[in-house]
Amino acid sequence: MEALSILSGILLLLLSGAQSHEPVLSEKLIRDISNYSEIALKIIDYSLTGPGANQSYNRLATFVDRYGPRLSGSSNLEDSIDHMLYLLQQDGLDNVHGEEVNVTHWVRGKEIAQLLEPRSAELSILGLGSSVGTPEEGITADAVVMRSFDELEERKDEVKDRIVVFNPTYVSYPVTVAYRVNGASRASKYGAVATLIRTVGPFSIYSPHTGMQVYNSSVPAIPTACITIEDANMLDRLERAGERLTIHLYMEAQTLPMVISRNTVAEIKGSVYPDQVVVVSGHLDSWDVGQGAMDDGGGAFISWQALSIVKGLGLTPKRTLRLVMWTDEEAGGIGSQQYYQRHREDADKYSILFESDEGVFLPYGILFSGSAEAKAILQQIGQLLVSINASEVYDNGGGTDVDWWREEKVPTASLANHNEHYFWYHHSNGDTMDVLDPEEMNLCSAVWAVYAYVLADLDDVLPRG
Amino acid sequence: MEALSILSGILLLLLSGAQSHEPVLSEKLIRDISNYSEIALKIIDYSLTGPGANQSYNRLATFVDRYGPRLSGSSNLEDSIDHMLYLLQQDGLDNVHGEEVNVTHWVRGKEIAQLLEPRSAELSILGLGSSVGTPEEGITADAVVMRSFDELEERKDEVKDRIVVFNPTYVSYPVTVAYRVNGASRASKYGAVATLIRTVGPFSIYSPHTGMQVYNSSVPAIPTACITIEDANMLDRLERAGERLTIHLYMEAQTLPMVISRNTVAEIKGSVYPDQVVVVSGHLDSWDVGQGAMDDGGGAFISWQALSIVKGLGLTPKRTLRLVMWTDEEAGGIGSQQYYQRHREDADKYSILFESDEGVFLPYGILFSGSAEAKAILQQIGQLLVSINASEVYDNGGGTDVDWWREEKVPTASLANHNEHYFWYHHSNGDTMDVLDPEEMNLCSAVWAVYAYVLADLDDVLPRG
Ligand SMILES: [Zn+2]
Ligand SMILES: [Zn+2]
Repeated sequence: MEALSILSGILLLLLSGAQSHEPVLSEKLIRDISNYSEIALKIIDYSLTGPGANQSYNRLATFVDRYGPRLSGSSNLEDSIDHMLYLLQQDGLDNVHGEEVNVTHWVRGKEIAQLLEPRSAELSILGLGSSVGTPEEGITADAVVMRSFDELEERKDEVKDRIVVFNPTYVSYPVTVAYRVNGASRASKYGAVATLIRTVGPFSIYSPHTGMQVYNSSVPAIPTACITIEDANMLDRLERAGERLTIHLYMEAQTLPMVISRNTVAEIKGSVYPDQVVVVSGHLDSWDVGQGAMDDGGGAFISWQALSIVKGLGLTPKRTLRLVMWTDEEAGGIGSQQYYQRHREDADKYSILFESDEGVFLPYGILFSGSAEAKAILQQIGQLLVSINASEVYDNGGGTDVDWWREEKVPTASLANHNEHYFWYHHSNGDTMDVLDPEEMNLCSAVWAVYAYVLADLDDVLPRG
Repeated sequence: MEALSILSGILLLLLSGAQSHEPVLSEKLIRDISNYSEIALKIIDYSLTGPGANQSYNRLATFVDRYGPRLSGSSNLEDSIDHMLYLLQQDGLDNVHGEEVNVTHWVRGKEIAQLLEPRSAELSILGLGSSVGTPEEGITADAVVMRSFDELEERKDEVKDRIVVFNPTYVSYPVTVAYRVNGASRASKYGAVATLIRTVGPFSIYSPHTGMQVYNSSVPAIPTACITIEDANMLDRLERAGERLTIHLYMEAQTLPMVISRNTVAEIKGSVYPDQVVVVSGHLDSWDVGQGAMDDGGGAFISWQALSIVKGLGLTPKRTLRLVMWTDEEAGGIGSQQYYQRHREDADKYSILFESDEGVFLPYGILFSGSAEAKAILQQIGQLLVSINASEVYDNGGGTDVDWWREEKVPTASLANHNEHYFWYHHSNGDTMDVLDPEEMNLCSAVWAVYAYVLADLDDVLPRG
């Protein structure tokens, strides 16, 4: 295997070299970056076997064990932000502060779904973010099962006064999530009284996964919750078998007035260009299930760790290295949007924004969005990570919290990691510390720190497109 | 891979042949068994692509979707047995009847565990079978976490008036289940007021798994429930971090007087030796979670399917082929024990008892307990299953419901199948139809039918040790 893949790698290199239009970096820039090889090795050692070993995992465990999940608008989240500000100060970082933002405040309340016919059974549900509740007496109605929006259109006459159960086959998260986001309004258009959406995920041990949904203001807002893959399939089979399905749904969900939360900021102030910044980030808020350890405690804590490592090694980059732990990502990037609006006028001073919000499993490189020239610089930096097999640079980097900056052509990047099981746990009670691994987080922290430090210390901010 | 494994197979064969003490079957018996090759192929075709294709899966889905889980003592179970007797009669089987047995009647009732300190969080629990409930006001107490019985002995002075949380590392089900079975009484001995046991399993998405526990009559019976692996690890970390743990536990669990249930029996009456039997079996009861689809709907329904296939092909074996769907296996084999006590005087007429209670995933052979001579006969029959890669015969066959018969030296066998993920779902809400696969069940049914039919049709019952 190994010999074969090296061989095919060389072949690919020869082929791509032959027709390459990639920009060539200056000799000086290549040399400048190569000169960081000793520092990169120090960062890797510090993170894997030095004082940083297991630190991000242990810090995160202590944090989420203490505060639990951190839904936007909750006192859990604000208490955890207070404590985070304290921790960052204790860590000796500069300019530790919260930047206030107005965030959503949706509360779940009690929620129950009961299958009444053809047999009595409790259905495990999680109301979807922004859903309205039911009337106090709940909603009792017959249910119809739709496997797709196409089927909904075909059978729209059967939907009035019914609970619509969506049971779409999982294709991929970006594709199938349309049912969670738009299912309620699509069904409400034809008179449905509530919707139950099959959990968006590839695998389940009877676990419902929550997430955001969006009402279309032209139709009535109806209560909507997710159910497990297993129950969606069961209801599907029962309907196909000709059984009448009757369901009782009770949800106390409601949206309260917006409240003030904070993006959490800390820095290592740059020695030469303190006004220029490299941002590393993740979001501190989470859904109100599990521990919010993977989504996105992991991303937030490896970002903190990047600064801790640089600080611990006594390094000071030329420009400022800024940590941002976003608030209210889960409602669609509310916190990061307000940060962008407040700081976009300084866009030319932002070299790059890193965001980790797709897992902190075994890393193999980064994903990048920006000019070809900038990508070539990151590829050169990637060579400093060959020893930990994390040198690759792929396209399409970014994420909900940093994509705003594309409008200003600021480069963005995210972590390429083995997150194949991410959606097994995402937005569910399964999102706990058990999903994460200390050594994988050490490696992620090292990748993050090497890129962030070198980019903050090069002579220039990254070139735009 | 394929070429290598064939080669090593030949080598092993040569080596084992050189030092073999295995009994040699008579030429006649080898010929007799080989003569079933055409029938075996018919059975396989019938099950994989003929009228039997997907039949056991579909029958099981309809059954468990309709009745749900079937705890001993519940009306669910008795209603499902009534319906099963009807289905077996509809299938044209002989001598369909229930054999009454007295079974346990434990009810779960409502149950809640709440972490109060160091933060408020609901802990997902499942009370363990036979557990007592708490007083009406529940139990509120500080908790201590024990990683092993050894640690409990070392720290026994810290246990009085405490809730003991057991967080043993999972080694294997037979080893680690000791904590679930004996944990309550081990802790009660030192004055604990309740126990919470880490779910016995190798993997979890925040799913508690229930199961039987046993009180030692010399110490007070205290309430006991399982918690998830994730929460056990969290409590463990919190204790190590020096946090005080306070938990509120409320359980309505209670054991009611025993009730009458039934083992469900159906037959294809033997044409020559109707009093002699080959038994195929699984248990119809389940825990009160999920659908009881895997444990043990699958085993019960492939056993039914074995008879359906034989009947559907118009075959009548010389001796009787008997299906038994046991009741109340989950309390320790209550149903099968009473069957044994009632029928053990006929032990010499029982050629073999098959039990499937360890999954109906991709089969690769059977497990067998009995004399070397009998094993050689089964190995010869196994050759009829080479085309579906299920010809292997391993040692240590049997299971809770048929092991009683070892006392009378009656051979027992079970299904060797790829059940590596069995304990991901076992006794949890994840035990649903989604775990099973129609084609794998077709294969299991074929294996079951070939062994059962040939053994029921050979000239003699299997030789004893
Ligand atoms: Zn996230
Ligand atoms: Zn079982």
